[in-house]
Amino acid sequence: MARRTSEKLSSSAADKLIDRLLRFRIEVPSWGYAQTGTRFGKFLQDAAAIDIEDKLADAGSTHKYTGITPTVAVHVSWDFPNGFDPAVVRLAARHGVKIGAINPNLFQDQCYKHGSVTNRDGAIRKKALDHILDSVEIGRQAKSGYLSLWFADGANYPGQADIRQRKEFATEALKVVHKAMPSDMVMLIEYKPFEPATYFTDFFDWGASYVFCKAAGHRAKVLVDLGHHLPGCNIEQIVAWLLDEKMLGGFHFNDHKYADDDLMVGAIDPYQTFRIFSEIAGYEFDEGKDVDIAWMIDQSHNIEAKVQAMIRTTVGIQELMAKALCVDRKALAAAQAAEDTIACERMIRDAFFTDVTPVLHAVRGKLGVPADPLEAFRQSGYEQAAAKARRRKRKELETSGGSNYA
Amino acid sequence: MARRTSEKLSSSAADKLIDRLLRFRIEVPSWGYAQTGTRFGKFLQDAAAIDIEDKLADAGSTHKYTGITPTVAVHVSWDFPNGFDPAVVRLAARHGVKIGAINPNLFQDQCYKHGSVTNRDGAIRKKALDHILDSVEIGRQAKSGYLSLWFADGANYPGQADIRQRKEFATEALKVVHKAMPSDMVMLIEYKPFEPATYFTDFFDWGASYVFCKAAGHRAKVLVDLGHHLPGCNIEQIVAWLLDEKMLGGFHFNDHKYADDDLMVGAIDPYQTFRIFSEIAGYEFDEGKDVDIAWMIDQSHNIEAKVQAMIRTTVGIQELMAKALCVDRKALAAAQAAEDTIACERMIRDAFFTDVTPVLHAVRGKLGVPADPLEAFRQSGYEQAAAKARRRKRKELETSGGSNYA
Amino acid sequence: MARRTSEKLSSSAADKLIDRLLRFRIEVPSWGYAQTGTRFGKFLQDAAAIDIEDKLADAGSTHKYTGITPTVAVHVSWDFPNGFDPAVVRLAARHGVKIGAINPNLFQDQCYKHGSVTNRDGAIRKKALDHILDSVEIGRQAKSGYLSLWFADGANYPGQADIRQRKEFATEALKVVHKAMPSDMVMLIEYKPFEPATYFTDFFDWGASYVFCKAAGHRAKVLVDLGHHLPGCNIEQIVAWLLDEKMLGGFHFNDHKYADDDLMVGAIDPYQTFRIFSEIAGYEFDEGKDVDIAWMIDQSHNIEAKVQAMIRTTVGIQELMAKALCVDRKALAAAQAAEDTIACERMIRDAFFTDVTPVLHAVRGKLGVPADPLEAFRQSGYEQAAAKARRRKRKELETSGGSNYA
Amino acid sequence: MARRTSEKLSSSAADKLIDRLLRFRIEVPSWGYAQTGTRFGKFLQDAAAIDIEDKLADAGSTHKYTGITPTVAVHVSWDFPNGFDPAVVRLAARHGVKIGAINPNLFQDQCYKHGSVTNRDGAIRKKALDHILDSVEIGRQAKSGYLSLWFADGANYPGQADIRQRKEFATEALKVVHKAMPSDMVMLIEYKPFEPATYFTDFFDWGASYVFCKAAGHRAKVLVDLGHHLPGCNIEQIVAWLLDEKMLGGFHFNDHKYADDDLMVGAIDPYQTFRIFSEIAGYEFDEGKDVDIAWMIDQSHNIEAKVQAMIRTTVGIQELMAKALCVDRKALAAAQAAEDTIACERMIRDAFFTDVTPVLHAVRGKLGVPADPLEAFRQSGYEQAAAKARRRKRKELETSGGSNYA
Repeated sequence: MARRTSEKLSSSAADKLIDRLLRFRIEVPSWGYAQTGTRFGKFLQDAAAIDIEDKLADAGSTHKYTGITPTVAVHVSWDFPNGFDPAVVRLAARHGVKIGAINPNLFQDQCYKHGSVTNRDGAIRKKALDHILDSVEIGRQAKSGYLSLWFADGANYPGQADIRQRKEFATEALKVVHKAMPSDMVMLIEYKPFEPATYFTDFFDWGASYVFCKAAGHRAKVLVDLGHHLPGCNIEQIVAWLLDEKMLGGFHFNDHKYADDDLMVGAIDPYQTFRIFSEIAGYEFDEGKDVDIAWMIDQSHNIEAKVQAMIRTTVGIQELMAKALCVDRKALAAAQAAEDTIACERMIRDAFFTDVTPVLHAVRGKLGVPADPLEAFRQSGYEQAAAKARRRKRKELETSGGSNYA
Repeated sequence: MARRTSEKLSSSAADKLIDRLLRFRIEVPSWGYAQTGTRFGKFLQDAAAIDIEDKLADAGSTHKYTGITPTVAVHVSWDFPNGFDPAVVRLAARHGVKIGAINPNLFQDQCYKHGSVTNRDGAIRKKALDHILDSVEIGRQAKSGYLSLWFADGANYPGQADIRQRKEFATEALKVVHKAMPSDMVMLIEYKPFEPATYFTDFFDWGASYVFCKAAGHRAKVLVDLGHHLPGCNIEQIVAWLLDEKMLGGFHFNDHKYADDDLMVGAIDPYQTFRIFSEIAGYEFDEGKDVDIAWMIDQSHNIEAKVQAMIRTTVGIQELMAKALCVDRKALAAAQAAEDTIACERMIRDAFFTDVTPVLHAVRGKLGVPADPLEAFRQSGYEQAAAKARRRKRKELETSGGSNYA
Repeated sequence: MARRTSEKLSSSAADKLIDRLLRFRIEVPSWGYAQTGTRFGKFLQDAAAIDIEDKLADAGSTHKYTGITPTVAVHVSWDFPNGFDPAVVRLAARHGVKIGAINPNLFQDQCYKHGSVTNRDGAIRKKALDHILDSVEIGRQAKSGYLSLWFADGANYPGQADIRQRKEFATEALKVVHKAMPSDMVMLIEYKPFEPATYFTDFFDWGASYVFCKAAGHRAKVLVDLGHHLPGCNIEQIVAWLLDEKMLGGFHFNDHKYADDDLMVGAIDPYQTFRIFSEIAGYEFDEGKDVDIAWMIDQSHNIEAKVQAMIRTTVGIQELMAKALCVDRKALAAAQAAEDTIACERMIRDAFFTDVTPVLHAVRGKLGVPADPLEAFRQSGYEQAAAKARRRKRKELETSGGSNYA
Repeated sequence: MARRTSEKLSSSAADKLIDRLLRFRIEVPSWGYAQTGTRFGKFLQDAAAIDIEDKLADAGSTHKYTGITPTVAVHVSWDFPNGFDPAVVRLAARHGVKIGAINPNLFQDQCYKHGSVTNRDGAIRKKALDHILDSVEIGRQAKSGYLSLWFADGANYPGQADIRQRKEFATEALKVVHKAMPSDMVMLIEYKPFEPATYFTDFFDWGASYVFCKAAGHRAKVLVDLGHHLPGCNIEQIVAWLLDEKMLGGFHFNDHKYADDDLMVGAIDPYQTFRIFSEIAGYEFDEGKDVDIAWMIDQSHNIEAKVQAMIRTTVGIQELMAKALCVDRKALAAAQAAEDTIACERMIRDAFFTDVTPVLHAVRGKLGVPADPLEAFRQSGYEQAAAKARRRKRKELETSGGSNYA
């Protein structure tokens, strides 16, 4: 019944697995390389990226060592503060990467204290909408396939806000944005149960995002951030449902123990993340083709070295995907058909514990990257050089104050 | 800014409040009068109802003292084990109540070990479907307006079940049932995140019920059981959304601290329940008419006296509804428009703490029931008489074994 | 059985209630008047306090309108950055308040990235210890009765830290501090399950604080912050246990829905806070005297007006205390003795819903403060004047950057 | 930095690992082989054990295939209903196992509705105490080293019970029991936050058990059941603390997703269980010897085949222990000393993902059991034979009614 090591995969199964992994790409977030912190303060790192140039260099380095992170998600307010800038695209190219999902920023400006697209004040709603439309334009010019929307909108206290009215306001805005998007752009609508809002958030769970997507238009899809669920939530079931409904837009990968801790994927509950990949692998098996979604990382590396954290995360995701592909879907279906619960449970967990190192080494060999990307990066001296250069740059600049977030 | 006692309501406001409460009815569940327990056993009560006759007598007694529980939800397997029975309807009438929502039972039979309408075995799915169709027929003959569906279906272990396939099976069944319902019957689709299933349930949250309803047909609506949410979930927001989507079918009221504890409404978090009522009151204010939904209790009185618990719950719900109606919606809208968070928060909480006893006494006077229904019932001797009669009846019967649940 | 309005209290009971409330005081935190935010940024308020002068003025204003907040907890790094300063004490006196609990700050300096008293680096541990000893000295000179310790120490990732070693380090430090305290100073040891640390915190729950207190010495007591518990935790039971063990040092009051949201007390779950007060009232009843603990507020007013929020919180706590004192302890004991669950539950909830407004007005009359402190403050023009003055002051200053927290 | 396969362990490290595993034993619970269910009913299995004879046969079978479960925990009311019975000990010996921890049953009798050792009624407290003392006597005669105490005591509603009084009652009883125990018996005090009680339980968390143990006497230790914690709780930290305090008595192993689901260990969150083992391995490394605690399983196999589930669980625990022993403690300490968070996190996770199959095969070879115990058992025909025999036995017996639990 069991199969524990990848050597025991038939060579055709191993080849299929390797092929799939060769087509597997993950997007890194530009903000994951910058200083971040908690509401209690930031612990600063010399090697943290200061500007979009640093971020693209770091992203390029991540891609150089992993071979599977060719795109970088950007935050408009931080990375394109003055609208589309072709220099950024050229800079990305110089570092071997491209601009990925476009993220408007609708939570930092003081005017958004009581909401952006859900604000009672029509002028603020318009400002928020205009910013999103500008982001669409940036995405068009940057040839980005995704507009990635996260709204911090919500309320802190009962009574403070009109839930239904805000739902209407948000719906109106999303419709306008959907209409403005180029025909090959996908709108991703993220959800989150709390934080920064403490009583409710307007985009609170997958059901809310689903309803918003259906109202916005057919290119609007749900974005699942692994850290944005209430305790105990079965995320893999949500993923399976969204796949079945053709409404899964993509992921923001990270891990957490308590709230939206934005830890490295797999650091706390790797088995849950694996189960998500297993649902996807099952769907791809049934459909006979790769699923077309946005695979993105969204993490906040508060104390750990940032490029290292991104590399570790990238290969960690790749490894979990490889393990999920080790599930023998036909054998599993047979065990399910026999209601052999013990065998079903074992097949899934055995796949999780399968040593896929040989497969990953094969994949990395074909991609022309080191067998152990993290170790190779640590040996490269990149981090030390960046720390030195950025210490110098930081001295020359005024630190910006403002948000802790990026 | 504040208003704390109902005396301070203007007399026209008080009249409106009383009028609304005079139109407010709650449905009691037949199973709430029977012996219940936990997986560790049942603590038996002499006065617990043994059969449908006892349950209807208890429900009649609840109505006699509260004046607002004229209907009784029934569980088909326990209350109509052999299909529709006009004697039960007559018996109900004799106790001053009517048959309310019809609840099929799809979780007790051994064949449902791996699911009912989601079972892989077509024969079991058919059995489950037939039972629901029989329930529709019972409802038609009993002139019930609601078919209330709760599915215990789910899985205990990762790998055990095919999530998407089960979703398809459930959808198919719901479509057939919807088609079979009389045109004035509403299908209520309940959701629950866990228990008895421990890994996932097929009807897991409001989003799942919403998707199922949309697939089933326009008379399918979401049923919100207050105990069926993950920790921290903002239930009043879900209620507001479902109202906005015209998809709220009704409630199963109860309270809980940890899991689905099925405690008396208001015993643990009365303010949350009040906030739900406040969302409804706001919706009714905006629409200018009463909302048309099923207001039902679903509790399990494991250690507390059962009729007392039902009366206490009924008047507790009535009281929270009265308090919610004390929110001055125009003043609240003005404070919201001014983004005066402190004032908004205070208005809501002050309404909650308003002493509505005089209003409730006025309502009860008009309904011809005692001012303090619980105390009056406790003085009546009903419980002692029931205990004596049922001790005797119990001796004459074999206890049925089977489930702890009812 | 029921008693709903305070008028129905016997006049001797009402007198006792009023007497107890006249002896009831709450401490406000200096940081609750300053700008605060989340990791995503701060929404700024013109009227927010900028420095200790503003904070003491705001605290004085809170006391002026409520009559029950004569002391102000201070954060050493923000309020006594250069050690004890008699000018601050004089300034407090000028605003009608005194310095309360002394709070060292062990979370902002970059050196504390991996812990303060639990840091592996002995030099950092010494720095942290010295800062606490300095705080003891400030407390001695300011005649403060409490040293209030919260440690942000913890780890973000499995493997990162040696849990047992850190426990030993913390224990050593606490022993030294305990020895250094004046004989009339009480050490309060706070606990918190997460944030800012995301994998574990060194002072994680009441059991941890209890063990630390026992090791530190007999003047070390547990500090309960209402926002620092895992979902579902029964806080009133912890309070009852700590009372029974003579180990309850005091409270940090606030409310929350999800994480440590630091909302106004009673804004989300007033019944839970009431139940805590009910445990205290029961303990005072049994002991025949007032409990001697620190009653402190710890909130973060991110969007709501700050002095208003503090006044609303103060009177909200006072109201819940009044309600808790309405529980008829003898009648409750009798109902408990009879195992009359329904009556017990009703007595507690009826006390919660008792309208104590008349009692509170009587108390405020005796204290010489307005019957409605919040409304009176709102009418006073204080906030508008503060906003104007502080806008001006802010222009003259460089904003400090650094932490979002205060 | 990394080490992924056990082949890469130095041969001396592998030998040490194998030696430790050869000394590793787990205790199975007799009730894990019987019919169990939820409050909604039981799904029956033909092969489920009916009586102590069946249970011991099943336990013997578990031991036969795994080689590491030589003892069986017993529930007095079910397994020694008439006091100590030497025939049971002989029967165990015939099946190759011995009697392990003695578990009194203090939750099934109707008199325990409002508590056992915490009951207000002195006669019921005495009955509970006498039952525990009888259990001590059974343990003495059965040469059991552990008295394992779980109290279902608690309350369902606020107000219902006097928390401090119940604490006193429980303390008194524990002192008496501690005095009555033979000098080589250890008292294990379990804790659980909720279920069956829904408002509070008297033994609610590790802190409560710790306080009770300290009061009871030096042979009282805390029992950690993995399913008895609030959401998000860091259990490995509690384990590390209890080890440091010399207060860890042992474990009840199981896994869960939501409440106390009693699933097979490792089925939901194997990494968390691994981290617990890693804390123990670290402690053993520091102490230079095996920790002396009770390693026990406590599961409820509602739908999965019971002996299979027990074997799968046993080898799953063994595997996680093996993985925990793969952590290179010296290298980890070095990385911690360097505050190299990335390296620390990787070392822990890499150990978790190490393929320990070769080591386990070596251990099983030495123990003389099959390399794949589960598969061997499945092939053996035991289950089919048991099903047949027990179907027959069941027909001859009246089912007992009573509790669903066992």
